[in-house]
Amino acid sequence: MSRTELTRAKHKERTDRAILDELLDSVRIGYFGLIAPAGHPVVIPATIVRDGDRILTHGSTGSTWRRQLAAGSPTCLTVATMDAVVVARTAYESSVHYRSAVLFGACRQAEDKAHALDLIVDGVIPGRSAEVRPHTGKELAATEVLEMPIAEWSLKVSDGWPADAPEDIAGPAWAGVVPLLSSHGEPLPAPDLRAGIPLPPSVRRLARTLSAPPC
Amino acid sequence: MSRTELTRAKHKERTDRAILDELLDSVRIGYFGLIAPAGHPVVIPATIVRDGDRILTHGSTGSTWRRQLAAGSPTCLTVATMDAVVVARTAYESSVHYRSAVLFGACRQAEDKAHALDLIVDGVIPGRSAEVRPHTGKELAATEVLEMPIAEWSLKVSDGWPADAPEDIAGPAWAGVVPLLSSHGEPLPAPDLRAGIPLPPSVRRLARTLSAPPC
Repeated sequence: MSRTELTRAKHKERTDRAILDELLDSVRIGYFGLIAPAGHPVVIPATIVRDGDRILTHGSTGSTWRRQLAAGSPTCLTVATMDAVVVARTAYESSVHYRSAVLFGACRQAEDKAHALDLIVDGVIPGRSAEVRPHTGKELAATEVLEMPIAEWSLKVSDGWPADAPEDIAGPAWAGVVPLLSSHGEPLPAPDLRAGIPLPPSVRRLARTLSAPPC
Repeated sequence: MSRTELTRAKHKERTDRAILDELLDSVRIGYFGLIAPAGHPVVIPATIVRDGDRILTHGSTGSTWRRQLAAGSPTCLTVATMDAVVVARTAYESSVHYRSAVLFGACRQAEDKAHALDLIVDGVIPGRSAEVRPHTGKELAATEVLEMPIAEWSLKVSDGWPADAPEDIAGPAWAGVVPLLSSHGEPLPAPDLRAGIPLPPSVRRLARTLSAPPC
């Protein structure tokens, strides 16, 4: 059996790459699984941004786990969102709407480090990279950008109504779905911001858009 | 070196158990790392609820990964939130406010299955377990509840203002923080809800409270 084949809840499986991309584009944190040198599993959270057929993640060149990822250690990248609470008439049928994806593979250094960093900045704050000065050589040297190809993956989506049994539907309990919403709050200027510097377009747009789904 | 000792960004380390508990209580999804029988790492997302010194998680008795967790396979449970976007004056200093925790250990069956399931339901919808009928024996038999002791963990919190260099502070770029907010939306009644059943107190309260932080 392939490691991306679901063993349970097959009706929740999705094989449409567009649904995977939508999920990857709506989360900001990915969870990289590794086998530590001592032999136990470890899961490292990291900011991730999708660019076409690759996932980008960056960090300091000094991180132990990142060095292991950079060396091509086999990894599993998992992302998930919780989109709603499913209020069933019974505890047993209570659940949540979620989307989750599990990707297997390995990371490698991104060849286009400066461009990839811009993509990561713009993934979190669309349009921001064009508003700031270019990266310096020193900054680039201190930063590592990894890419993981999107190649071997599985995807699950749970999005139904409560599935109570007829005898519970006939009972007194309420049932429905409560959506989980997220948004950006009002921008807070830094204490050391010089007077007279206006809010940039990227931040103005950000404050009007929905943020990533709750986790 | 212990596996919970941070190798980098030591100033972000927190050792206060109350901060860990606050994080664990504010997320709904945890990521369990395992070493698959074939030898590669795998990361499984699951709904988690903290109860004192243990993390509870439940699912079907038919799940392969859950069986491995139930058998006491060494695991790493990671949770993280993204609480704000840090808009620096440079791409290099741009970052996010986050909280993340990594717990090592193993799961075991929860002895108090019915009670633990109520805690899980109430963790997602506070007060709901008292509004629905008791679990049936068949429902309990089909459900597995695992607990993982909170024993070996590390915790990181990133919550500062942009840390730009003096020459960038003197420049034209804006800097600040944009909070990420989340909330519950309006409850949607199930299509098969019988007429005349009012919204229960638990769901009314839920719709007024903040949900988990964005991910």
